Amino acid sequence: MSPQIILYGLLALSLSLSFAADLSPLQDFCVADPQSQGIYILFVNGLACKDPKLAAANDFFFTGLHLAGNTSNTVGSVVTPVTVSQMPGLNTLGISMIRIDYAPWGINPPHTHPRASEILTVLEGSLEVGFVTSNPDNRHITKVLHKGDVFVFPIGLVHYQRNAGSANAVAIAALSSQNPGVVTVANVVFGSVPDIAGDILVKAFQVDNTVITYLQSKF
Amino acid sequence: MSPQIILYGLLALSLSLSFAADLSPLQDFCVADPQSQGIYILFVNGLACKDPKLAAANDFFFTGLHLAGNTSNTVGSVVTPVTVSQMPGLNTLGISMIRIDYAPWGINPPHTHPRASEILTVLEGSLEVGFVTSNPDNRHITKVLHKGDVFVFPIGLVHYQRNAGSANAVAIAALSSQNPGVVTVANVVFGSVPDIAGDILVKAFQVDNTVITYLQSKF
Amino acid sequence: MSPQIILYGLLALSLSLSFAADLSPLQDFCVADPQSQGIYILFVNGLACKDPKLAAANDFFFTGLHLAGNTSNTVGSVVTPVTVSQMPGLNTLGISMIRIDYAPWGINPPHTHPRASEILTVLEGSLEVGFVTSNPDNRHITKVLHKGDVFVFPIGLVHYQRNAGSANAVAIAALSSQNPGVVTVANVVFGSVPDIAGDILVKAFQVDNTVITYLQSKF
Amino acid sequence: MSPQIILYGLLALSLSLSFAADLSPLQDFCVADPQSQGIYILFVNGLACKDPKLAAANDFFFTGLHLAGNTSNTVGSVVTPVTVSQMPGLNTLGISMIRIDYAPWGINPPHTHPRASEILTVLEGSLEVGFVTSNPDNRHITKVLHKGDVFVFPIGLVHYQRNAGSANAVAIAALSSQNPGVVTVANVVFGSVPDIAGDILVKAFQVDNTVITYLQSKF
Amino acid sequence: MSPQIILYGLLALSLSLSFAADLSPLQDFCVADPQSQGIYILFVNGLACKDPKLAAANDFFFTGLHLAGNTSNTVGSVVTPVTVSQMPGLNTLGISMIRIDYAPWGINPPHTHPRASEILTVLEGSLEVGFVTSNPDNRHITKVLHKGDVFVFPIGLVHYQRNAGSANAVAIAALSSQNPGVVTVANVVFGSVPDIAGDILVKAFQVDNTVITYLQSKF
Amino acid sequence: MSPQIILYGLLALSLSLSFAADLSPLQDFCVADPQSQGIYILFVNGLACKDPKLAAANDFFFTGLHLAGNTSNTVGSVVTPVTVSQMPGLNTLGISMIRIDYAPWGINPPHTHPRASEILTVLEGSLEVGFVTSNPDNRHITKVLHKGDVFVFPIGLVHYQRNAGSANAVAIAALSSQNPGVVTVANVVFGSVPDIAGDILVKAFQVDNTVITYLQSKF
Repeated sequence: MSPQIILYGLLALSLSLSFAADLSPLQDFCVADPQSQGIYILFVNGLACKDPKLAAANDFFFTGLHLAGNTSNTVGSVVTPVTVSQMPGLNTLGISMIRIDYAPWGINPPHTHPRASEILTVLEGSLEVGFVTSNPDNRHITKVLHKGDVFVFPIGLVHYQRNAGSANAVAIAALSSQNPGVVTVANVVFGSVPDIAGDILVKAFQVDNTVITYLQSKF
Repeated sequence: MSPQIILYGLLALSLSLSFAADLSPLQDFCVADPQSQGIYILFVNGLACKDPKLAAANDFFFTGLHLAGNTSNTVGSVVTPVTVSQMPGLNTLGISMIRIDYAPWGINPPHTHPRASEILTVLEGSLEVGFVTSNPDNRHITKVLHKGDVFVFPIGLVHYQRNAGSANAVAIAALSSQNPGVVTVANVVFGSVPDIAGDILVKAFQVDNTVITYLQSKF
Repeated sequence: MSPQIILYGLLALSLSLSFAADLSPLQDFCVADPQSQGIYILFVNGLACKDPKLAAANDFFFTGLHLAGNTSNTVGSVVTPVTVSQMPGLNTLGISMIRIDYAPWGINPPHTHPRASEILTVLEGSLEVGFVTSNPDNRHITKVLHKGDVFVFPIGLVHYQRNAGSANAVAIAALSSQNPGVVTVANVVFGSVPDIAGDILVKAFQVDNTVITYLQSKF
Repeated sequence: MSPQIILYGLLALSLSLSFAADLSPLQDFCVADPQSQGIYILFVNGLACKDPKLAAANDFFFTGLHLAGNTSNTVGSVVTPVTVSQMPGLNTLGISMIRIDYAPWGINPPHTHPRASEILTVLEGSLEVGFVTSNPDNRHITKVLHKGDVFVFPIGLVHYQRNAGSANAVAIAALSSQNPGVVTVANVVFGSVPDIAGDILVKAFQVDNTVITYLQSKF
Repeated sequence: MSPQIILYGLLALSLSLSFAADLSPLQDFCVADPQSQGIYILFVNGLACKDPKLAAANDFFFTGLHLAGNTSNTVGSVVTPVTVSQMPGLNTLGISMIRIDYAPWGINPPHTHPRASEILTVLEGSLEVGFVTSNPDNRHITKVLHKGDVFVFPIGLVHYQRNAGSANAVAIAALSSQNPGVVTVANVVFGSVPDIAGDILVKAFQVDNTVITYLQSKF
Repeated sequence: MSPQIILYGLLALSLSLSFAADLSPLQDFCVADPQSQGIYILFVNGLACKDPKLAAANDFFFTGLHLAGNTSNTVGSVVTPVTVSQMPGLNTLGISMIRIDYAPWGINPPHTHPRASEILTVLEGSLEVGFVTSNPDNRHITKVLHKGDVFVFPIGLVHYQRNAGSANAVAIAALSSQNPGVVTVANVVFGSVPDIAGDILVKAFQVDNTVITYLQSKF
């Protein structure tokens, strides 16, 4: 076996591209290294970065947030993300931005961001938005937003938006992490791979197994 | 109007007891001040503390974690918490402990802790446990645990336990926050106060309104 | 002297409204308490919060970000902020949003945010943007942005924007702090109160005292 | 010399397995990579992690905490740890768990955890526990615990436990770090390698050199 | 009873001056409020601050670090601290400074700082310095320092200095906290109030009770 | 092509030396690895570290802070740094130290540290020092310091020192980061590479282009 192959094997075995980094930067910036995905990948808590001497303006740049996304899907909304995956210069900086398009009556279904709060402003249309506090109160705090209105969803709480009108709606939002994560409640509970055992969901949702099976079939 | 009443009014108006504190302590300890709840309440990010000279052993103490909780409820499990609410000395220390009792086949339903990871060990019986990763993979990582087994649920991810046997089960778990918070998925989505609009849940769960109304009636 | 007056005096003496809070929230949210500014003010590291039971949707809400600001000033730009000062629900959440309007060829002059990175997207027009790295390299990383382009300015580095066209330009930006702070270089160095001694600036900028005096007269 | 050997040498020279990670996770999880110890080792602040696609339930699992440890040693106690060294999935999650067994009258000698607070519950028997505050007060806060009692030891403070009875005792404790560290006072001061100079300890403990030499001979 | 007295009583009951703050500042500065100690005291995690409008140059100022301290004591050394207690402007800034004077052969006895690393430079004389790593290795890392040498002691580890000459020695050190805390090993273990039970120390230090009693009598 | 060359190439391509680390250490220490710069360089948020078994006293050591620096330059001052670049053991410990020498009337020009507060004491001579608060107040807080005086400059704010006498002056300062960064205002604004466009600076400083060109020619 040739040395090169051994080398490639070794590196492939134990190094892989890391993820993201929300903590404070410890240098001017730490641009996530896309090169590193070619041959080996190194995982750390957050992403490894490229030589700062090689950092260039394009690392801090993304284009296309003015373009409407395709909302032809079951929920009638789509997110165009600008996180560290799309803009490597965001690595370690603790911020990201998204555009959300909503078809008439489309929704961004209930979800949490485990690693970020979110601030959102409406560019076009009207949105009904809300979040629910943790146990035991589960208070539902909700508001209808119009163009130019701004709302914030606190980190870790379940929240959603719905287009409150018959025209398209558009929002720009920002999140306090370069890799905020998304946990969509319905998908996680009824669409995990593999499924969560039916009798657990029967007890959790207090419905019979037919309903649970039906819900699981949708995801 | 007497000055005392004005004083009470002023204090009641603008001061209230704060909540909890996960960040690093900036002194030896910062015992949450239960006295402060009597007359006025001061809210900060985390809880205000009492004069350290008045801190005593009982502030760092809780009794009763050997007692089985009452599992006669719809899910067949109950949590006995030792967070900063029960043990004021936990304030700022970033740790708490709970006991969980499970009736036969009882479940601790799918939920997240927005501010803590959780490590759990089984004292009696057997548990099926699992958590689901964030979008887009929604991987379900699951394991059956027996007495003496330990498992960890990462911060912010949906997780659950189920008694995997016909005897009672008992677990001790610890969380990486003195105020971890609990977001029980079913309660937050179908039992918030007030309800989330039905048509949002219809789209989110891809079922018709009858099912959503039925689910909401359960919480 | 009446007891009320003494009370007011005492409170005024030693309590004052706190500022802002970027660290992780230790409860679901911690809405900054505007009431507390009326009678006394309590300063902590970040802002004290109001009773969470009294938190309402309007605490998490701001209106008006669709309105163009007035750019009739010496630099030809204006910022409409949505920080914790405008939206008390942002307290502890580590995020804020701003709108920036630029007259033709208007600039947002070189400045730093001591407590935040900033991500910006162009809604209308074109912008030349840039930031400069720390010593010793002082690399100037710059880019021309058009509608839908996104750029990030790392925390603590000097950065600026200029309207690169003869039409008005508009941007939405988000910052990774609810109280990011702004240090505008020219104002801080030549417009501080009182002035920095002329001979210090003479040496720092390597020009004669006439130029420094002239610069100071502008701020 | 063969290329493989050079490769191994290079990697051995400059890469080594990192340690642990208490800070917030920047992705769902970051399982410490045991593979990486075989051929090369990479050190970072905390541990490098394996490809998240390869993470499996066993990474988040440990078995054996129901088994009594062997307390036949000079102090009559033994700790069975479940830190990131035993459970790689704990990496970045800021939590760990331990079991402590105590022979009759056995002690867990005075020590600090430089990176964690500790919460402890008694499963069997009775324990006398205590911690001492920092200078200048050096207050000793102590309590006798029985089955089901819980106590917390704040981060960085010297603390201990003693079996307060003639039966075996067992405790479960959790720490607010996946790599809390242990600094046992007697071992560090009298048993370091190499020894601390005798005259330093003579002055520090205000006893003559014979006593110090005797103490050092014990460790 | 007069309203003033009730007011004083209420405030004295539940408010007291807080301690210190190492976390990031959330505003330009947060000067610890010495006034607040007069009438009431408010404890938070770290210290409450005064109205920033009232902050003045003297809040950021301390005088006297050029003055030799009095080393006529049992260990032959003395620390002149500049922490948040001496310089209120240090509050929230995560830094402090100390001067240490050493009589010939004087020592700064083994201790830890639970909340700070320490960097030290020798101004006059020579010092033997060292620290010991945590379990299980307890490596003793030591060095003799001369004028102009610099050494660092990592957070939470036991460390010491000894004047390595027959002349006076002087050092300036800085710590990564405005309230670093000091845990002097001998004082905490043998001089706590009240004493740690003798039989615990007998087992911990593996000497007989006479030695322990003798050691306790020294503190 | 030989395997060694391929290996070197691969490593050179994607690994490079990381920078610095201010966050809490997750092990006793994490000495920055100078070896790693030879063959490959790995960048992370902060610096990778060497095998802790290989850490030695010299990693925590620096010599030469008693030596006067050469102040023959345009500003009449020079900084001798002891950051993680000079002392690899500082990595992750959040502290560093510097010596500053000032020729008569020399200045340390207005600058910020994006990642650290700074505490400074005067060893010889007298200094005029100051810092300026953020917008909108831009308060200039200033003080004349003599031997033994101490002053603190809060993180992110513009500050400076000037020798206030006709003799040499010397200061020792410490910073709350192992890699604090320096942003010298004049150099960043007028000496960046490439230049910031003249018309931006014309508007920012409200002077005509001749003055800007002149200023830029100085850096």
